[in-house]
Amino acid sequence: MSEKLDSVLETLKQDQEASQERLFEIIRIPSISTDPAYDGACNQAAEWCANTLTEIGFEASVRPTTGKPMVVGHYRSSNGSSGPNVLFYGHYDVQPADPLDEWDTPPFEPQLKDHPDYGSVITGRGASDDKGQFMTFLEACRAWHSASGELPVSVTVLIEGEEESGSPSIAPFFEANREELTKDFALVCDTGQWDADTPAITTMLRGLCSSEVVITGPSRDLHSGMYGGAAHNPIRVLARLLGDLHDDDGAVQIPGFYDDVHQLSTEQREQWNALAFDTERFLGQVGLETLAGETGHGTLEQVWSRPTAEINGIIGGYTGPGTKTVIPSKASAKLTFRIVPDQDPDKVVAGFKEFVMSRLPDDCTAEFLGERGSAAVGFDVSGPAFQAAAAALEDEWGKQPVFMGCGGSIPIVESFKSQLCMDSLLVGFALDDNQVHSPNEKYNLTSYQKGARSWARILEKLGSM
Amino acid sequence: MSEKLDSVLETLKQDQEASQERLFEIIRIPSISTDPAYDGACNQAAEWCANTLTEIGFEASVRPTTGKPMVVGHYRSSNGSSGPNVLFYGHYDVQPADPLDEWDTPPFEPQLKDHPDYGSVITGRGASDDKGQFMTFLEACRAWHSASGELPVSVTVLIEGEEESGSPSIAPFFEANREELTKDFALVCDTGQWDADTPAITTMLRGLCSSEVVITGPSRDLHSGMYGGAAHNPIRVLARLLGDLHDDDGAVQIPGFYDDVHQLSTEQREQWNALAFDTERFLGQVGLETLAGETGHGTLEQVWSRPTAEINGIIGGYTGPGTKTVIPSKASAKLTFRIVPDQDPDKVVAGFKEFVMSRLPDDCTAEFLGERGSAAVGFDVSGPAFQAAAAALEDEWGKQPVFMGCGGSIPIVESFKSQLCMDSLLVGFALDDNQVHSPNEKYNLTSYQKGARSWARILEKLGSM
Repeated sequence: MSEKLDSVLETLKQDQEASQERLFEIIRIPSISTDPAYDGACNQAAEWCANTLTEIGFEASVRPTTGKPMVVGHYRSSNGSSGPNVLFYGHYDVQPADPLDEWDTPPFEPQLKDHPDYGSVITGRGASDDKGQFMTFLEACRAWHSASGELPVSVTVLIEGEEESGSPSIAPFFEANREELTKDFALVCDTGQWDADTPAITTMLRGLCSSEVVITGPSRDLHSGMYGGAAHNPIRVLARLLGDLHDDDGAVQIPGFYDDVHQLSTEQREQWNALAFDTERFLGQVGLETLAGETGHGTLEQVWSRPTAEINGIIGGYTGPGTKTVIPSKASAKLTFRIVPDQDPDKVVAGFKEFVMSRLPDDCTAEFLGERGSAAVGFDVSGPAFQAAAAALEDEWGKQPVFMGCGGSIPIVESFKSQLCMDSLLVGFALDDNQVHSPNEKYNLTSYQKGARSWARILEKLGSM
Repeated sequence: MSEKLDSVLETLKQDQEASQERLFEIIRIPSISTDPAYDGACNQAAEWCANTLTEIGFEASVRPTTGKPMVVGHYRSSNGSSGPNVLFYGHYDVQPADPLDEWDTPPFEPQLKDHPDYGSVITGRGASDDKGQFMTFLEACRAWHSASGELPVSVTVLIEGEEESGSPSIAPFFEANREELTKDFALVCDTGQWDADTPAITTMLRGLCSSEVVITGPSRDLHSGMYGGAAHNPIRVLARLLGDLHDDDGAVQIPGFYDDVHQLSTEQREQWNALAFDTERFLGQVGLETLAGETGHGTLEQVWSRPTAEINGIIGGYTGPGTKTVIPSKASAKLTFRIVPDQDPDKVVAGFKEFVMSRLPDDCTAEFLGERGSAAVGFDVSGPAFQAAAAALEDEWGKQPVFMGCGGSIPIVESFKSQLCMDSLLVGFALDDNQVHSPNEKYNLTSYQKGARSWARILEKLGSM
């Protein structure tokens, strides 16, 4: 460990009380982005972030958009020419706090409370998502600036205020400020750890594509007394073809669906197996016992690195109370496909159409609506930034970080990739039980403190890249 | 032909103009039973029927119910002890006339118009359903009463006023007047001919049973990013099992479903084949070309004498605009089964449950709602009343009547069977293009005149049974 880092970590230690108070300050601002009643609070939160960045050596400003303002700050390190230039991303907006009566203490009055498993936790809306998380990075920067006089690398910070309401301003803002924001890669602090003792880097995010299929049989709804037995029933046609979508082993039967899907590397599989993921608990908390996916693939593989075909909605015929003896003219289903790196969303959707058309009885027609797709994102973990971050996290936590997948997508990571051609290093310190988006949101005090120490170490490693 | 019948038929001929005017009178009364605005008209129609019955020798009265009144009349024939006692059924209420602007002439101003295929037709709401039809019987009675002094058999006439609004008063009225209404069998004039030249007796009506199945997978709706691939999706489970409901030949795969289903008799099959039913036209008018039912059974067999399993409705997950990446907790489908004579509705529903339960993955549960059923009705056409009616119709039309099936059920026939233990002789003179329930309803003048002659002949044959 370098002397500089040593003094940075010591500074973080000495500054813990003030650091906690700074987090409390920003939590106290009810910056709920979906509710216009809180527009003033959002502006106040943006100002607070810009002031904080300025205080720790950034050239920072609040940048208006047609929605909530962005905060952008630049820190030019003297090491800027040799080390990488990075963009750090967080968001100052929070989810609404309803239902208020389920909070033990008011959502915008943060408190330090004892917790049976974790010692002290910080409570309040945004304590974890994302105020506690982005503050770990700002506190690491503050300590570096204070202890060493400057950051080890040049850093641009972007803090947005619309993450909880769909980030409508991100695309135009990126478009208008492409050069200013495009760095070697992005650091994002909005994800979780593997568990309370084990850090993680999220390195793969599944993509998503969708299609809605409408099957038409007869030209109008028929009475089943008159036509029942003789006329095609589009619900039956739809059920039959959706029933064929998976084989008995849960594999998707769309032609070519797995053509571009890579097998998990042996190392990755071994690492995930070693985690001994608690499938029983994962399924048990939603009332299930049996893993329903593809035979021969473990739980983590099924949700992180295997593609899926899901029927998200189906409707046809009479769905009100009682019975109606109708043979409907139409029936439809909405499907989404979680896809993995190198699967082409257009090819997957085209394969689904082909699957439907090849099974369609002569008299029925199929219409396809609402198709859209975004590719999966997968990062090469052997790259120097990932290795640097992994080493730093291991130094702090005494354990190698888990390279995690994520079954869903994280829109900002896709925007960085598609608009600014940047990979993202996703490091976060949240835990599954942080109650984000729910009453009694909390962030462990150790997550906050060790999070800041982790970033301090990561910044140092990035500076030596 | 007996001399008496000869003079009855001659009377009908002489009386044609007045007979037509009587039909016009009752059509002019807008007795729409679903709309309380026409309650007065319904009462007026009931009075008209009772007066008409009285005029032709019946002891008739308007009988109040909690809904629209019933009309009941009794005619005691001196032949009453030897011949059968019959109950004739019709209904004086009609469907609403909307949309009014699609009528060529006002619905309640009946007219005689030229028709390119049929010569003269009587137009107006109820001209066919059921005023024209029940009047054929009353005109036959009038002619017998006038020409011969009495009817050949004792007849009770029941004319209800709620057929078009679900007949809510029938069950309590039958219950309260069981003895008065229970006769050897019922005559019903509310069905159709095979075609304009060929009379028909409807001799089999499919029954109906139903079940709604609700599949539950996870205990709450899941995000497909988090659980997609690992958790059971109840829509997929439902689609898969409904997709298995029929085999590739369209046969229902429920265990024991066909155990009690009789093959069509060779005679019946030959008669139906000889009809050369126009399947192309039947399917073409609803936009279809291919017969979708069980391989190896003709169209008439499929809709009249084969049981079916139909999915009438299905719903699950997100069905609004756009996409939602949900794995729903529940998905459900409503099914009805058209059943044929000797199939037990309870056994069919139990078989469906067994079919579902045997295919249900470990983690899913199935709930069954809204089960109900009514058996099919099939009459033995070799019975004397059927043979008498068939001979009478052949005398009038110069062609054997077709023994038709009916894919749907006719509630009154089930009520006669289940409540009063009576079989029904279903003879009617409607044609498929009569536009019943639609604008420009019509009844061919020949249907009206030959209908009355047919009943006159049937009454005579019944009197000689």
